[in-house]
Formats: sequence, C-alpha cells, structure tokens
Amino acid sequence: MKKAIFYHAGCPVCVSAEQQVVESIDKDRYDIEIVHLGEDTGRGRINEAEQAGIESVPAILLDGAAFHINFGASMADVKGDA
Amino acid sequence: MKKAIFYHAGCPVCVSAEQQVVESIDKDRYDIEIVHLGEDTGRGRINEAEQAGIESVPAILLDGAAFHINFGASMADVKGDA
Repeated sequence: MKKAIFYHAGCPVCVSAEQQVVESIDKDRYDIEIVHLGEDTGRGRINEAEQAGIESVPAILLDGAAFHINFGASMADVKGDA
Repeated sequence: MKKAIFYHAGCPVCVSAEQQVVESIDKDRYDIEIVHLGEDTGRGRINEAEQAGIESVPAILLDGAAFHINFGASMADVKGDA
C-alpha cells in the first residue's frame, strides 16, 4: 500500500477539499491518513509536514510527494506566529 | 461514474503532478480525462476550464469542483496574454 496523508487546519476550505479529494483516492492502493494540524499542539505533525515539503494547507502527500491544494492557510498561520 | 478532468499546460511541474495525482485516483469510480491547455489553440477547453473555476494549472476538476495543485502557470500565461 502507498501512503496518502491529507493535512488540513479545520477551516471550511480545508474540510471541503478533504471530503472531495480523499473521496477520489483509490483506497485499494492507498492507505489514507487525515491530519488536523490545527489540533497538533505538540507540533510534531507540523514539523513532519514541513519536512515533507508542505508549505500550506490543505495539502496532500502522495507517496511522499507534496501537493498543495488551492490556497488555504499558510503554515505560519497554523502555528499562530504569522 | 464520476468525472475527473486534469488540466495542465505541458510544463514540468504539470507533468509531474499529473502522473502522481492521476495515479492516485480510483479508476473504478472516476472517468479520467487529461487536457493539455497549451495545445488548445481553439480555446474551447480553456473557456470550459475557466467557467468551471480553474484559475491556474495544474488543476483537477473532481465531479465539477475545481482544485488547484501547487501553483504552476496562470491562465493568463497559458493564453499568452499575460
């Protein structure tokens, strides 16, 4: 199984994108994880996302490759230090 | 079957995104069409894309909803009138 990780921050644009993008992915070939970075108080998942090349949310990591969807909140906004 | 249309302009970022994003979609539930807007000299597909809410490429239209991937070329660049 390949890994797909969908990162979002709970905003309406993220939730809408999550539902439609995740719905389209082939669950027979991809193990899908959904990560709400706005609830990542320990920042472990934020750090992981940044290291994977995620610069804004919503975004999806497909087999290690980062794809930013539309433009939602910057990583600085998610951290609250923008 | 739902319809997924991937719009690109032939640039390297588009081609890379196309291969990985299209690969992840469930072909049992989505009929996938790939449209190269850079070769759309009649502009019919460009007009169709814009009416669907596509503002930049690469982008994917999932069941009528536009999702812009990363940021590649603006629609103005594709048309050559930027």
